[in-house]
Amino acid sequence: MNEISKSVTELIQQLGRLPGVGRKSAERLAYHLLRVHESEANALAEAIVAVRKNVRYCSSCYNLSEGPLCGICADPSRDSSRLCVVEQPRDLMALEQAGVYRGLYHVLLGRISPLDGIGPEQLTIEKLVDRVRVGNFSEVIMATNPNVEGDGTSLHISNQLAEYPVEITRLARGVTSGSILEYTNREVLADALTGRQKL
Amino acid sequence: MNEISKSVTELIQQLGRLPGVGRKSAERLAYHLLRVHESEANALAEAIVAVRKNVRYCSSCYNLSEGPLCGICADPSRDSSRLCVVEQPRDLMALEQAGVYRGLYHVLLGRISPLDGIGPEQLTIEKLVDRVRVGNFSEVIMATNPNVEGDGTSLHISNQLAEYPVEITRLARGVTSGSILEYTNREVLADALTGRQKL
Repeated sequence: MNEISKSVTELIQQLGRLPGVGRKSAERLAYHLLRVHESEANALAEAIVAVRKNVRYCSSCYNLSEGPLCGICADPSRDSSRLCVVEQPRDLMALEQAGVYRGLYHVLLGRISPLDGIGPEQLTIEKLVDRVRVGNFSEVIMATNPNVEGDGTSLHISNQLAEYPVEITRLARGVTSGSILEYTNREVLADALTGRQKL
Repeated sequence: MNEISKSVTELIQQLGRLPGVGRKSAERLAYHLLRVHESEANALAEAIVAVRKNVRYCSSCYNLSEGPLCGICADPSRDSSRLCVVEQPRDLMALEQAGVYRGLYHVLLGRISPLDGIGPEQLTIEKLVDRVRVGNFSEVIMATNPNVEGDGTSLHISNQLAEYPVEITRLARGVTSGSILEYTNREVLADALTGRQKL
């Protein structure tokens, strides 16, 4: 295979480092980038460079931001008495798209995961505790992922916040809208029964 | 969603133009590029720019190449009496990986597809006929895709080459190595029976 162009090999290699992109997909993407108009390929390259140059973390909540404060922290119309704690900026974005929450956020930039060598000190938990101490939050909503590591992270944080007069809540768990009970697994049904709500 | 950074939105949009990358995958890729070391993200951007700057089509066979002639055309050890006709450079690369062919190639850069408005004049067929006319090929192997459009393209080309003293062959069709006869469809079995070979 010494016949392929070095630039193509390099591009396939770089594309193959993306998550979920295997050798075959990387080849397909590389040929796509060779086939489209040069301006389209370069637009992608420029977008990558620009995002790394322009985007940093919000100095308050660690959301992605192009300025020192992200759009949510800088928005005076947001409800500053509620704080929603998420693992990653993309979780924040998913919650925003749901469109029912108007409070502030705090992004942990990960979750506690001893197996991956990630302890609480590598997350933004210290900053979160600071925000709760000096802020006027009445409620902190834990919105970490509903799995062992996310739950562990939530538990750790709620212990850290125990001394402050805030209510700590977490996302509701139950059956998902549109799902079929017959095919729902028992953990989910147990959550749904335990957390049943008045009609 | 006015809260996401403009650079991130732009990157997600550009990534979403790649084949097989939907909105969700584009978001995932964008966050990956935000999380990795800046040098890794920039390496991808540079590889894209470099490939478009450095790579052109071989002036003889239309394979991808960094110079006027591709590595295969420039290699004197290749068998210059055989010419294998493929649709795209990636087909060429797949055949090269099979490792049994040592002749030359001709890349059509597409196939005849009236529904997509692609006629023979948009492909490199004229150049192929020129090569066969002036070259000393004893065999032209049609290796277009084994489907209606690929077969149509092959047929058109073999008509164009009918006046020249070359043997025109096509890739063998039959059952695929490792497959199970019981689950093989009838078109494939029909091909395999029609083209049966002496043991």
